[in-house]
Amino acid sequence: MLDTAAAPILSERLRAAIDTQNWRDLRDALTELNPSDVADLILALREEEEAFVFRVLPRDEAWQVFSYLPPDHQEGLIASLSNEQIRAVVRSMNPDDRTRLLEEMPAEVTRRLLATLSPNELNDARALLGYPEETAGRYMTPRYVTVQPEMTAAEALAHIRRTGRGMETVNVVYILDAKGHLLEDVRLGSLVLADPSTRVIDIDDPPLVSVVATDDREEVLKRFEKYDRVALPVTDAEGHMLGIITVDDVLDVAEQEATEDIQKLGGMEALDAPYLSVGMWSMIRKRAGWLAVLFVGEMLTATAMSYFEGEIAHAVVLALFVPLIISSGGNSGSQATSLIIRSLALRELRLRDWFVVFRRELISGVTLGMMLGLIGFVRIVMWEKMHFTEYGVHYMLVAFTVWFALVGVVTFGTLAGSMLPFLLRKLGFDPATSSAPFVATLVDVTGLCIYFSVALLILRGTLL
Amino acid sequence: MLDTAAAPILSERLRAAIDTQNWRDLRDALTELNPSDVADLILALREEEEAFVFRVLPRDEAWQVFSYLPPDHQEGLIASLSNEQIRAVVRSMNPDDRTRLLEEMPAEVTRRLLATLSPNELNDARALLGYPEETAGRYMTPRYVTVQPEMTAAEALAHIRRTGRGMETVNVVYILDAKGHLLEDVRLGSLVLADPSTRVIDIDDPPLVSVVATDDREEVLKRFEKYDRVALPVTDAEGHMLGIITVDDVLDVAEQEATEDIQKLGGMEALDAPYLSVGMWSMIRKRAGWLAVLFVGEMLTATAMSYFEGEIAHAVVLALFVPLIISSGGNSGSQATSLIIRSLALRELRLRDWFVVFRRELISGVTLGMMLGLIGFVRIVMWEKMHFTEYGVHYMLVAFTVWFALVGVVTFGTLAGSMLPFLLRKLGFDPATSSAPFVATLVDVTGLCIYFSVALLILRGTLL
Repeated sequence: MLDTAAAPILSERLRAAIDTQNWRDLRDALTELNPSDVADLILALREEEEAFVFRVLPRDEAWQVFSYLPPDHQEGLIASLSNEQIRAVVRSMNPDDRTRLLEEMPAEVTRRLLATLSPNELNDARALLGYPEETAGRYMTPRYVTVQPEMTAAEALAHIRRTGRGMETVNVVYILDAKGHLLEDVRLGSLVLADPSTRVIDIDDPPLVSVVATDDREEVLKRFEKYDRVALPVTDAEGHMLGIITVDDVLDVAEQEATEDIQKLGGMEALDAPYLSVGMWSMIRKRAGWLAVLFVGEMLTATAMSYFEGEIAHAVVLALFVPLIISSGGNSGSQATSLIIRSLALRELRLRDWFVVFRRELISGVTLGMMLGLIGFVRIVMWEKMHFTEYGVHYMLVAFTVWFALVGVVTFGTLAGSMLPFLLRKLGFDPATSSAPFVATLVDVTGLCIYFSVALLILRGTLL
Repeated sequence: MLDTAAAPILSERLRAAIDTQNWRDLRDALTELNPSDVADLILALREEEEAFVFRVLPRDEAWQVFSYLPPDHQEGLIASLSNEQIRAVVRSMNPDDRTRLLEEMPAEVTRRLLATLSPNELNDARALLGYPEETAGRYMTPRYVTVQPEMTAAEALAHIRRTGRGMETVNVVYILDAKGHLLEDVRLGSLVLADPSTRVIDIDDPPLVSVVATDDREEVLKRFEKYDRVALPVTDAEGHMLGIITVDDVLDVAEQEATEDIQKLGGMEALDAPYLSVGMWSMIRKRAGWLAVLFVGEMLTATAMSYFEGEIAHAVVLALFVPLIISSGGNSGSQATSLIIRSLALRELRLRDWFVVFRRELISGVTLGMMLGLIGFVRIVMWEKMHFTEYGVHYMLVAFTVWFALVGVVTFGTLAGSMLPFLLRKLGFDPATSSAPFVATLVDVTGLCIYFSVALLILRGTLL
């Protein structure tokens, strides 16, 4: 039972082996570990020791460790290894890992890497790279086992024994016709459990589910969730088999998609890397863009406020509730937009559901606005009665103004927050672009107009 | 290649079969489909037809379809089936699915369900239910294949053929000693590829990774991601094997965790179900709670504003920039808090990293604040020069006030947004509770104080 808590102790053993230059002991210590744990250990070492430890690894383990390292460490290692060593590592990588490596490295490093590949390997990498980013094609590996439909279970097992070594997974094998069309998939478990003389095509197994190479990775994720598979085959539009996607890659996709959505929802560009791995200035740039756009949008509030400057000068009491009212609109908008963006991402909601959502959010908005308005009303009347603050002789009218304005602002915030993601998707944009701060900015400007209009309606002739 | 687009067409064939009461055709049509697709079709039917179609399903497929239905439909179905039919379905469910069913149903339905279980099945369900919510114990199934360490690969395969039917997965088998301690796991693929006479314990396979039943599900998710497995064994604290968790359950967990975080980040309680499955009032309740808390907190802005009422009455121009300044603090806080909450959830950041983050966010905050302040400064000076708005003779001082206030407010917003999640985790709460609206409210109140303090400093003797 390996525990992450064991890492520091193992690191000491490593340290001793490195310090005493005991290569044998070092190699033994490393090969007992999972590649991902070796990667963690390497990350804890000094830079000059990294390449050192890495060279001790057996070749077939080296690429696995390599693929677990973050891109900047991969880059450093490549710089410090000889061309021969790089070739050995890159050659033994899985094609999908190799594709992602080539994609993430700076052009200079990519050129050096490509130079080490054989023409065949180059073809693999190019084929995978040919699909648009975030499509199924980018995540597939061409290393899988195929069988012919007329094989028996026993023959198929023998075939797997001959050809299965070095494949990404043999948990599922694929039945192709003579022209390379995918007919069915069979789980290894079903093959083992079946009567040895059954033809593979007749084995009782869940129906085939596949994806097309140009499918979006969100669609791939959805299929994995719905059908509970450990691997899905990828075909071209005509049904020719191209590769497979394994569930471990999809788990990473699920996390990345959610991370991107959360960062966009927070009102910034997606970072594409862990917080501490992103350079300070590149992070500031990713935040500055949206922040500046929102700021410019928010400057409309100053315009709106100066439009009502006369009213404020007349009744300063109105200014006191401006932050309270516009922030309530922003908060209710933030709730609605997070809810709808996530539901759209998980495909719980479709574009055509917009009107059902509109109706629900309209009722929710009015209800929530009535409730908040009531709290605001009671607060103003109580503070006046208890002489905490003097809102003047027309305090009841002010309290009603705040109540009605809140109903309007919260309803508008809720509707804007819930409809904007639908609108963005309809227009072909990512719904998550409708971030909470974006909705808040929209609602702030409109909220001011609602508030002062209600004030003019209720207070004309008294305060205004 | 089954596509979701095929669903409406199949539904017509179903409809015809139902209308003509052609049970045979109906059953044939249903058994060709994936259970999850049958579940989708059932959801599209009228309520009285649901139970109808469900009864036609072969028994061993019925439970699978059942486990894909949303809880409210499961409840409706249970109400409309006979005890005998319920027993048949519940008995053939996997123990982990059964546990979740019992957990999600109202007490009345749970009692009826429990009554249908045999003592043995009750024990399974109780054992799984005994672990705290969201721990590994809740997601494990006791249906896995074990082998003894001295078995050969050939013997193990024969053993799997005898005992593997009806197991959740046979992709991995587990080597236990005589006392039930977990020694190793072996992938079925490795067993098939190994020399038949090799002892299973000697088969070359990645090292064992396991989880303890009381581990949090986030930890389980992390292990799956790190070690790329299709199933992980669950043990008690002494290393006795209790069950396995399969990757498909973990994929669902990953999505749920992200959804909860997004909903909390939006400033509401997590919904625990798809948007359209949650009743309108229960959804309004989940939103009203936090909205009311935030509103009460935000009422402090009214208090702060009335504290500076004299200054506003003196210089109404100050009021114009209130929404702009406090919203910029809220936006930068929202960015920082989303970023940090997600990094904490993915364990990219640990508690001990708080100071590194503090330093980075301090620099980011000051930089972003300077930038926004500059935009604000230019805007005020330009509008004045171009006579769009008259800010009075001291407009340069007002512009500087806005600039310096923005540096302070954005820096405070960034620091509050990034440190609050750390503080919450330190205190044992979920960091995601520090929602974007929560940070915005905190920053609004402080932002007003910063703004008016800067104004007093710069404008005393001129405007104030």
